[in-house]
Amino acid sequence: MQAANEEQVDKTQINLSKLSEIKDSMSEGESELRAVKRMLGGLSYVEIAHLLNSSPPKSRQYLWNLIDPDSHAEVIQELPEDVAVQFVKNMDSQQVAELTESIDVDDVADILQKLPEQIMQEILEAMSAQNRSRVEMVLSYEKDTAGGLMDTDVITIRPRFTLDVVMRYLRRHEEIPPSTDQLVVVNGDNVYLGTLSMSKLLTSDPNISVREIMRTDVDAISVDMDDGKVAQLFEQNDWISAPVVNDIGQVLGRVTIDDVVDVIIEDADHSLMGLSGLSENDEDTFAPLLKSAPRRAIWLGINLLTAILASSVINIFQDTIDKVVALAILMPIVASMGGVAGSQTLTVVVRGMALGKIGASNRNWLLMREIMSSLLNGLLWASALAVLTAWWFEDIRIAIIIAAATMINLITAAIGGTLLPSLLKRLGVDPALAGGVALTTLTDVVGFMSFLGLATVFYR
Amino acid sequence: MQAANEEQVDKTQINLSKLSEIKDSMSEGESELRAVKRMLGGLSYVEIAHLLNSSPPKSRQYLWNLIDPDSHAEVIQELPEDVAVQFVKNMDSQQVAELTESIDVDDVADILQKLPEQIMQEILEAMSAQNRSRVEMVLSYEKDTAGGLMDTDVITIRPRFTLDVVMRYLRRHEEIPPSTDQLVVVNGDNVYLGTLSMSKLLTSDPNISVREIMRTDVDAISVDMDDGKVAQLFEQNDWISAPVVNDIGQVLGRVTIDDVVDVIIEDADHSLMGLSGLSENDEDTFAPLLKSAPRRAIWLGINLLTAILASSVINIFQDTIDKVVALAILMPIVASMGGVAGSQTLTVVVRGMALGKIGASNRNWLLMREIMSSLLNGLLWASALAVLTAWWFEDIRIAIIIAAATMINLITAAIGGTLLPSLLKRLGVDPALAGGVALTTLTDVVGFMSFLGLATVFYR
Repeated sequence: MQAANEEQVDKTQINLSKLSEIKDSMSEGESELRAVKRMLGGLSYVEIAHLLNSSPPKSRQYLWNLIDPDSHAEVIQELPEDVAVQFVKNMDSQQVAELTESIDVDDVADILQKLPEQIMQEILEAMSAQNRSRVEMVLSYEKDTAGGLMDTDVITIRPRFTLDVVMRYLRRHEEIPPSTDQLVVVNGDNVYLGTLSMSKLLTSDPNISVREIMRTDVDAISVDMDDGKVAQLFEQNDWISAPVVNDIGQVLGRVTIDDVVDVIIEDADHSLMGLSGLSENDEDTFAPLLKSAPRRAIWLGINLLTAILASSVINIFQDTIDKVVALAILMPIVASMGGVAGSQTLTVVVRGMALGKIGASNRNWLLMREIMSSLLNGLLWASALAVLTAWWFEDIRIAIIIAAATMINLITAAIGGTLLPSLLKRLGVDPALAGGVALTTLTDVVGFMSFLGLATVFYR
Repeated sequence: MQAANEEQVDKTQINLSKLSEIKDSMSEGESELRAVKRMLGGLSYVEIAHLLNSSPPKSRQYLWNLIDPDSHAEVIQELPEDVAVQFVKNMDSQQVAELTESIDVDDVADILQKLPEQIMQEILEAMSAQNRSRVEMVLSYEKDTAGGLMDTDVITIRPRFTLDVVMRYLRRHEEIPPSTDQLVVVNGDNVYLGTLSMSKLLTSDPNISVREIMRTDVDAISVDMDDGKVAQLFEQNDWISAPVVNDIGQVLGRVTIDDVVDVIIEDADHSLMGLSGLSENDEDTFAPLLKSAPRRAIWLGINLLTAILASSVINIFQDTIDKVVALAILMPIVASMGGVAGSQTLTVVVRGMALGKIGASNRNWLLMREIMSSLLNGLLWASALAVLTAWWFEDIRIAIIIAAATMINLITAAIGGTLLPSLLKRLGVDPALAGGVALTTLTDVVGFMSFLGLATVFYR
């Protein structure tokens, strides 16, 4: 009855300690198995999903088999697609088809799209005609558009209804779909006319008509709209739900905030994961080795190539290094300072671009600020580095060289960090994915080149 | 009336091109000024906020002065706190106090907290008594708790009411607060008893009492709960709003999904920004130079120290490098491969920890998978690197040395990436902020140490 604060706060800990218990029981006998089953019975769907999500592959499958099959649909609905697919793969089409009856149609579509084409077809064929046609409609749209995100459980009303009629119509429903904060007003051809908020419905005179109080100033979302744009509209307008229409304005379904939250998290993860060369698929922390290793291998391979490129720059100055070994000792500092400054600029710019805040009109200002920032920080740290180097190697020349090279590399980092993302985007490459590598390559090459190049001139 | 798809899709572009136009007009005469004002008049609050948010500091202030003062409150409400504060700072306390009357109380608290203590007090004193007491209540809770996140506009009802009474009570409201998907049921002491969803209210028989259909199985949120936990609960349970209670269960207010979405975005940004040593305050892409440069300076300074540490490792092996200059050319490759592998592991682990998925029960499995992943990828790329090096320097010894050092560093990266974040957390250091630097230092030091150390042994 009262707020069970601590219990909620430590839900994670409870779940994970339960996981330990369950793991201990796994190797034991029959009676332990019953104990695990009882434990699972005491958890909510959300808690079971979190438990599965936090389990390594083997325990995951083991737990799944112990869950009451009647809860499978509800638990699947709470799991990330990647994890859900792992269980669906091992079920027969008939079972899956039955499950999908009680899962939101957009989530069903997401899971099916991750299965091999043939299995997907088998499952679709096993579905009831009504369910299949709903799923097939969502499947016909790209996953990352409003169409791929929408549900079809939208309540539509006509403008001529009085509020009293609307109320009686609602009362005929067993229940109203979750996240219904507004009803969608359509004409006889199912074309979108406006919305009527539940709050307006409840506070207005029951005898007036929908037409008199419906909102018509908010556009419906087009079924082709990119899901990132949908999320931006929801976030900016604090929407709970929004109707989705086709190109002639007919209402197809609605997008709800819970699905939008998932998009927002995925988009943020995309930038975060992308900077380390991971895909959003890596959101499954406990993906099996053979699924996670190959993705990493590609990124390491690309990095190997760029590192070799940087080394071949050093190779040019072999003779200079041979003469002054201090250069070899100091050169990583110049490259590293450029790398750090560059990644700071890059992160700000990539994030700003993802939020639609950067365009031709303000890019110059941003470039100037980043250059000025590099100049100021360069003056500070390049001087510190010069003093330290002069003291360490008792050589004023190398101190001047390293300070100059650091300045050059910091400014390169500012320019590269600001301009590379839009350049990559224009080339059709995702800046969140390729930006980090491209920039580090740039700052490594320029760092080594400027430091060793200046040294070659000075120590001739 | 119909879906204005393209218009919405390209809102950003339109806004930013408007920004160009406005900028062009800024340097021109009186008549241009009127043109800008007209343009602004045609934009929604959300669009104006986006425009301000995408403007460098000078244009920002210029635009602000041209906005109809009657819209100031609505626009402020749509701006990130960092940007909102810049405008509030330049207003007198009386003006600010008036503005706050029409802004959500949690947003007012967020903005006030960013102002100097004295100005905050002046503004509070200028407020109406009722508004001040609401704001002061929210201010009394930590910003990153449910208390700092809540609004006070919650509608409470009693369990003995019939639904018909509730409906008539709602109809007496001018309007129902946005995001009201449920009413909160309390007893005479305002203690939380349960919730009544609007959907249930609309579909049930008007003659039954609230008690008969209210939900009592969902706990209210404690006012002290960490905002990250609040976000997790909202995300997992697909909530729209949730009541907030004090330690004796009295209802203080409610948290709504729009504020939770902001928390989710901030948390994700925190991980992303943290890995480059930026704070979530850097979310203002167009922060002035003197605000953004000092934050970056600290990070560059820390990096300088760790880079010098790595260099001092190289310094130990000065004689070996003097003998074999190829070592200087190749050593950045070993360090770089470790850095990339480590940042991949780190990103997965930091993100998994933020989502509450990693604990003592599954850390070992994760560690083993990461080590195995490094072994597999190490075998692949270390061999490739060995072949290339043997061919490049025509020296089989250096090929073996670099392959071995790369393997050592990749495994170090896997272990460090998995264990460092929990170690840092136990030391009270934020892993999202310090993890990247700590790990790069580790992989640099181990990379140089193993490569040059092995070479010293082999080339003795």
